Amino acid sequence: MDFDALFNAQLDQLKSDGNYRYFAELERKCGKFPRAANHDENGVRDVTVWCSNDYLGMGQHPKVIAAMCEAVERTGTGAGGTRNISGTNHDHLLLEQELADLHGKEAALLFTSGYVSNWAALSTLGSRLKDCVILSDAGNHASMIEGIRHSKATKVIWKHNDAHDLEMKLRALPRDVPKIVAFESVYSMDGDIAPIREIVDVAEKYGAMTYLDEVHAVGMYGPRGGGVAEREGLSDRITLIEGTLGKAYGVVGGYITGSPALCDFIRSFASGFIFTTALPPAIAAAARTSIAYLKTSQIERAAQKRQVARLRAALDREGIPHMVNESHIIPVMIGDPVKTRMLADYLMQEWDIYVQPINYPTVPKGTERLRFTPSPLHSDADIDHLVNALSVLWRQCALARAVA
Amino acid sequence: MDFDALFNAQLDQLKSDGNYRYFAELERKCGKFPRAANHDENGVRDVTVWCSNDYLGMGQHPKVIAAMCEAVERTGTGAGGTRNISGTNHDHLLLEQELADLHGKEAALLFTSGYVSNWAALSTLGSRLKDCVILSDAGNHASMIEGIRHSKATKVIWKHNDAHDLEMKLRALPRDVPKIVAFESVYSMDGDIAPIREIVDVAEKYGAMTYLDEVHAVGMYGPRGGGVAEREGLSDRITLIEGTLGKAYGVVGGYITGSPALCDFIRSFASGFIFTTALPPAIAAAARTSIAYLKTSQIERAAQKRQVARLRAALDREGIPHMVNESHIIPVMIGDPVKTRMLADYLMQEWDIYVQPINYPTVPKGTERLRFTPSPLHSDADIDHLVNALSVLWRQCALARAVA
Repeated sequence: MDFDALFNAQLDQLKSDGNYRYFAELERKCGKFPRAANHDENGVRDVTVWCSNDYLGMGQHPKVIAAMCEAVERTGTGAGGTRNISGTNHDHLLLEQELADLHGKEAALLFTSGYVSNWAALSTLGSRLKDCVILSDAGNHASMIEGIRHSKATKVIWKHNDAHDLEMKLRALPRDVPKIVAFESVYSMDGDIAPIREIVDVAEKYGAMTYLDEVHAVGMYGPRGGGVAEREGLSDRITLIEGTLGKAYGVVGGYITGSPALCDFIRSFASGFIFTTALPPAIAAAARTSIAYLKTSQIERAAQKRQVARLRAALDREGIPHMVNESHIIPVMIGDPVKTRMLADYLMQEWDIYVQPINYPTVPKGTERLRFTPSPLHSDADIDHLVNALSVLWRQCALARAVA
Repeated sequence: MDFDALFNAQLDQLKSDGNYRYFAELERKCGKFPRAANHDENGVRDVTVWCSNDYLGMGQHPKVIAAMCEAVERTGTGAGGTRNISGTNHDHLLLEQELADLHGKEAALLFTSGYVSNWAALSTLGSRLKDCVILSDAGNHASMIEGIRHSKATKVIWKHNDAHDLEMKLRALPRDVPKIVAFESVYSMDGDIAPIREIVDVAEKYGAMTYLDEVHAVGMYGPRGGGVAEREGLSDRITLIEGTLGKAYGVVGGYITGSPALCDFIRSFASGFIFTTALPPAIAAAARTSIAYLKTSQIERAAQKRQVARLRAALDREGIPHMVNESHIIPVMIGDPVKTRMLADYLMQEWDIYVQPINYPTVPKGTERLRFTPSPLHSDADIDHLVNALSVLWRQCALARAVA
C-alpha cells in the first residue's frame, strides 16, 4: 500500500484550502527580543516578532538564563528517568512548592507541557471518577478537549463564557454524579476573559469541582502573577488551577495545583505523567526563578499593559479593526486563510514584521486572523512601525476599516 | 461533593495493595554520575543510582553541557511559542536533520517527549487513515497503547515478539485496508529485543507500514547509535522509527523519522504536536550534540556492554536470578510489590544503593521487580558492592536463588 500517497492526498487538500502551514524558521537572540533572525529562501535577516507567547520576554531574562546555566552545570542536561524511576530531582520539588504557593494551594504537580497537564489531568479525572460528567466551555483548548475525549466521561458543552448556560446544563444533571466545570481564564485566540466569579458561584451551587486553565494568564495577571483568579481573589474557590511554564515564564512545561489528595491522585494514576521522562532539573530551576521574580516585580506587567494599550489606540486611530477584549492579546480578524497568509507574507517581506497567520484548526474556519501580543520589550517605535505597515497594507488591499 | 474523599479512597486502595508510589528525591551531581544525593527523612546522603535511563551518562557529558549552556546564552531559555506560532527555531531544524540522518531517513519531527511522539503519531495515523487497523505488540508501551486507543482505529494485539502470530493476524484482515504494525525494539522492563527482520518480512508481505519504537535502543545499538534496526541493517525497511532524546542522549524530548510526506502529515494534523510550546532551542542544541557525539564515539557503548556483562556474571556467580535478554536491562524478578519495595528500601538505607521498585502499572501485577541498568560509569567496585548487597539480602530474606 502506498502510504505516502495517502498522506499526500490529505496534505494536498490542506494546501488547496489554504490551511497548509509554513513554519517561520527563527533564531532567537538572547538580549534582542522581540528581534530574531528569520531564515527563508532569501537568506537570513532580523525581524520583529509580534506573535510570541514569551509574553514578558522572560525567556531572555538574565536571572532566568543564569539559573538555567547554573543548574545545567550543577545537575546536567536531563532528569535521567521518569519521576518514579530515578527522575525526581530536588529542583522539581522546589518548583512544585513554588507553584503551589503561587496559586495559594497546598500542592502542585509538574508535567512536561501544558498540553500534557490538561490532557493527563482531565483524562484521569474523567475516567476514574465513576459516572463523572465534564462540563466544558465551548471555547476550551485542544488539550482539554482531547483529555476529556480520552477520558470517555460524559461531556456537556456550555456556551462560551456563559455562566447562565452553565447553570442550565448543571441543573439538568443528576445531583449525585461528580461534575467538573472546565474552563480557561484568558482565551488564547480571542483574548477574552472568563467571568470566573459567576462560574464559580454556579459550580459551587451544584457541588461541581472547578478546573481552570490559566496558561495565558499566569505571570501576567494578579499582583504576584497568580493569574486572573488571583486578581479576582478567587483562587481558593477553584479546585484545580492549571498553568504553563512556557509562555509568560519563558521556559517550558506545565502544571496543576490543588489539594494534596487531588495532586496525588493525578500523580498516581495519570498515564501521561507516569510514563514519561521528567523535565530536566535545569528547566525546573529556570522556571522557578522566573516565577519567583514575577511574584514581586511589577515592571514587566505594567510595561506590557502600557504597550498593549498603546497598540490598541494606534490601531483605533488608523481604523484597523481589532477584537475588543480585556487581555494582552490583540486579534485582527481577516476571515480567510489565503488573505491572512498573504498579509503575513507582505509584513515579513516588506516590513520585517513577523506575525504568524492563524488558521484552522487553531481557530474556526472563517475566523482566520493576525494575532498580536505586545510585550514590555516592544518599543513605541516598534508599535509605530507595525501600525504604519498595517495601514499601508489596509490601503493597498482595500481591507475593511473600522468605522471611526 | 467531597472530591478529596473520592481521591483518597482510590489512593488508599493503592496503598493497601502495596502499589502506592514513593518517589526518591535526588540531586543529580554533574560529573559524579551514577552518584547522586538522596533526600529523605534521615537527611541527605550520596547513593549510587542503579535504575537511571541516562543509560550512557550523556546527561553530564562536558560537550552536551557546554552545548546547552551556549545555546541558553545565545537563544534564551524557551522557544517562545508553538512550532507554528513563532516557536520554530533554527536549532530545531538542525536537530531534525541530525535525527533524519541518524536513522537514514529523509525527514524527522521533534516532539516535547517520547510519550507525546508515540501518542500523537499513532493517534493521528490511526484516526486519519480511513479504515486503518493497528496491529500492536502485546508488550507495547503505555504511550503507544494510549495513542492507538485515542485514534479509535481498530486495534489487533499480537503475541509479544511473535512474528508468526502477527502473520496470522495480518492474514485475517481485508487486503485493501491500511495496516500499521507497531512494536518496539528493546522492551523497557524485560529488556528483550524484537525479531525485527521477521516482523518486517511479514509486514511487507501484507503491505503494512511498520512503526518501530527505539527509545531504549537509540544511542546504544548500531554503529552510530541508530538503534537495533541500524545494527541489523533494517532501518530503510521500516516506515517510521520513533525515538527519545531523554534516555541514552541524556536530555529530554521525542521524535519520529520517516518519509517527508509521513512527517509532514503528522506535523500538519497531530493535535499533540500542533497545540504545544516547542522545546527550548537549548534542549535541541544539547540533544544534537549528544547524538552527533554518539554517532562516532564507541567508548560509551563498549563500556556499557562490558559492565552489563560483568553485572550479569556476578549475579550468576551468586545465584541471584535475573531475566535473560540481549540488552543492557537487567531485571531481577521479585513478584510481589511489598517485598520489592522492602528490598529497595533496605538497599537504599543499608547500602546506599538506589534502585526503584518497579510495580503495577509499569509491569503486570505479580511481576514486580528490581531493574538494574549498568552504565559505562558504574565502576567494577560499584558492581561488586551491588552484588554483595543483593547476596546478603537474598540470604537474609531467604529469597529463591537460581540453581547454579
